[in-house]
Amino acid sequence: MIDWHPSGVITITTDFGHKGPFAAVMSGVIIKRFADARIIDLAHDIPAHWPPEAGFWISRSYEFFPSGTVHIAIVDPGVGTERAILLAAKDGHLFTAPDNGLLAPILETADRVWKLNNDALSTLAIESPSLTFHGRDIFAPLAAELAAGRITADDIGTATSAWTPSWLDEPERLPHKINGVVVTIDAFGNLITNIDAVLLEGFDNPVIDIAGHIIEMNSTYGRVKPGEYLALANSFGVIEIARSEESAAKGLGCGRGAPVVITNQS
Amino acid sequence: MIDWHPSGVITITTDFGHKGPFAAVMSGVIIKRFADARIIDLAHDIPAHWPPEAGFWISRSYEFFPSGTVHIAIVDPGVGTERAILLAAKDGHLFTAPDNGLLAPILETADRVWKLNNDALSTLAIESPSLTFHGRDIFAPLAAELAAGRITADDIGTATSAWTPSWLDEPERLPHKINGVVVTIDAFGNLITNIDAVLLEGFDNPVIDIAGHIIEMNSTYGRVKPGEYLALANSFGVIEIARSEESAAKGLGCGRGAPVVITNQS
Amino acid sequence: MIDWHPSGVITITTDFGHKGPFAAVMSGVIIKRFADARIIDLAHDIPAHWPPEAGFWISRSYEFFPSGTVHIAIVDPGVGTERAILLAAKDGHLFTAPDNGLLAPILETADRVWKLNNDALSTLAIESPSLTFHGRDIFAPLAAELAAGRITADDIGTATSAWTPSWLDEPERLPHKINGVVVTIDAFGNLITNIDAVLLEGFDNPVIDIAGHIIEMNSTYGRVKPGEYLALANSFGVIEIARSEESAAKGLGCGRGAPVVITNQS
Repeated sequence: MIDWHPSGVITITTDFGHKGPFAAVMSGVIIKRFADARIIDLAHDIPAHWPPEAGFWISRSYEFFPSGTVHIAIVDPGVGTERAILLAAKDGHLFTAPDNGLLAPILETADRVWKLNNDALSTLAIESPSLTFHGRDIFAPLAAELAAGRITADDIGTATSAWTPSWLDEPERLPHKINGVVVTIDAFGNLITNIDAVLLEGFDNPVIDIAGHIIEMNSTYGRVKPGEYLALANSFGVIEIARSEESAAKGLGCGRGAPVVITNQS
Repeated sequence: MIDWHPSGVITITTDFGHKGPFAAVMSGVIIKRFADARIIDLAHDIPAHWPPEAGFWISRSYEFFPSGTVHIAIVDPGVGTERAILLAAKDGHLFTAPDNGLLAPILETADRVWKLNNDALSTLAIESPSLTFHGRDIFAPLAAELAAGRITADDIGTATSAWTPSWLDEPERLPHKINGVVVTIDAFGNLITNIDAVLLEGFDNPVIDIAGHIIEMNSTYGRVKPGEYLALANSFGVIEIARSEESAAKGLGCGRGAPVVITNQS
Repeated sequence: MIDWHPSGVITITTDFGHKGPFAAVMSGVIIKRFADARIIDLAHDIPAHWPPEAGFWISRSYEFFPSGTVHIAIVDPGVGTERAILLAAKDGHLFTAPDNGLLAPILETADRVWKLNNDALSTLAIESPSLTFHGRDIFAPLAAELAAGRITADDIGTATSAWTPSWLDEPERLPHKINGVVVTIDAFGNLITNIDAVLLEGFDNPVIDIAGHIIEMNSTYGRVKPGEYLALANSFGVIEIARSEESAAKGLGCGRGAPVVITNQS
């Protein structure tokens, strides 16, 4: 039994950037079906065709939205081919995305996962969707109907336990060492890793090795001098490498995919 | 008789970019007059002072919004000079923009077009508009009153059939050839032309000539190998040149205004 | 006695850029507490760690929002250190930001200024805020409760007249000369100064000296030929240096912080 009480809220995450009307027409389609929808653009700057960053942000952000929110994510290089569409329920939220690894961080711990049925478009009264913009033609109407409470995931999907795995390896926790990677970079140039801070439990004195630099942990940016590096458990619960009042990404010359090793200097 | 039943929805298209509070203060002015307005930012990245791209996107996007939507577009190098302001009704939607060619794709097939009357500012209770930000001081209050259903276009405008033409030539359809141009580029580097896909009817085997490359048609990005070019009838009904999982704009070294020739290789 | 009747509107100004879900999760937290909140993103492109631009835009923009709006501004290099949080009431609006000089243009003429009490987090039912994202964990819940009318500034703050001063000198008005600086640049490359147009009263023929160029005043961009420079009293009431249909910033090779001298050529 899934706990689902729609709040009317929908978040949208894409790699469309902020160019052109692509995200806006998705909002238009949603409110055309469900005038009271509350739409929040979560992020549109996911690197083109790189699903893992979308899944990372959604899995780390959904808890800050009301229970009953529908989260759509469209990073979809396979649009118009035979790739499936997934739905997942977790902690009172619903998620939907192409089956291409994007939702992996949610699916592994979801309460239930569905594959969209072939006849779902008919149930959703979707006629002639384009082959290149399923965000507008399938995901937006789907989210509108779910958020309005007029259909449920069970009405249009079939439970499944098979899906495309993540494109990223999970962090590896060894007795005195953790291996992970940089997943994304924020506007300040902070390097955000996929290493959950709870993995460091038991490390008395963790130090971070990235791009040939050894960096110590601290609690917040303002605790070190401007220009100094620090690592911290950030506000989304993962390890982040920062440089006070400057860009760690520029300073270290690295970005998405850079390997990060944490060792215990006990 | 114009079919106009305001939905309370307003879209905003500008060349203001995402810098500073320019778009946001337009929203502020709208909700100050009409608290229940539903505002959607359609696009703010129109190239500075280039009206045709705004008109292209609005004419291709409006149908995805509820009937009864007011669409404002502000790309306005002549702000504060004697240029007129136009309103147009089409398919149950209203459009307003400076009379500088921007709205041409809408005007040619509109149900009615009006020029804003000189005394409209008084009717709208607009006092001392600035000479440099009519988006905030004229278009935002105008859209608020139209969307709220408190005034109609007939109350503030006079029907007209004279306006500034488009800055772009319409695509030319010859027996075995179509000439058009690239109008805009999306975040993936796809080149979007002004050639409506219906113009290709009767072409058995259309091929696209752009920047010295001959490119074949296909149905969607994932149908060709990564790195290969394709042309397709895109989700807005026009011909687009793409490169699977890469940027066609970078690969071909061309952008807005690039000539596109389609020939029939029957 | 402060004039405060919440309108339910909240504006958000940050230096988070448009990357990642940082602004969006602030909206999520707000609507989780106050489902009817009306949220408008004022600007997210404030240069990293430079509070004065946020204060400038808020002080020049707030009047375009409904009375009863709560304005949040998060440019906060000292997040997680002992820096205080300020609230201010002015003209029926409320403002809140870190005490780091950001709000200076508002505070000097505010009706009342408060420092957030140490026990305010408990009153606001905020548990375990992160040390690095007070925008989400403190300012968003605070704004939600103020906008919902469930708490007042007096409930959580203590009146104060001590705060961190502005990082920028106020413009200096001499008998025949005004010294100021460029505060920000818009998407067109227009250079926006901190010189209020009223300071020019009594100047018969003001000319602007910037980056070695002498520039004359005009009323709007379209009144000079494309490529020519002009200075004008812009739509936010300050002096701006522009270049018709081009970028003054590029043309003059200067930006934020550039000195601007206005002399009276009478």
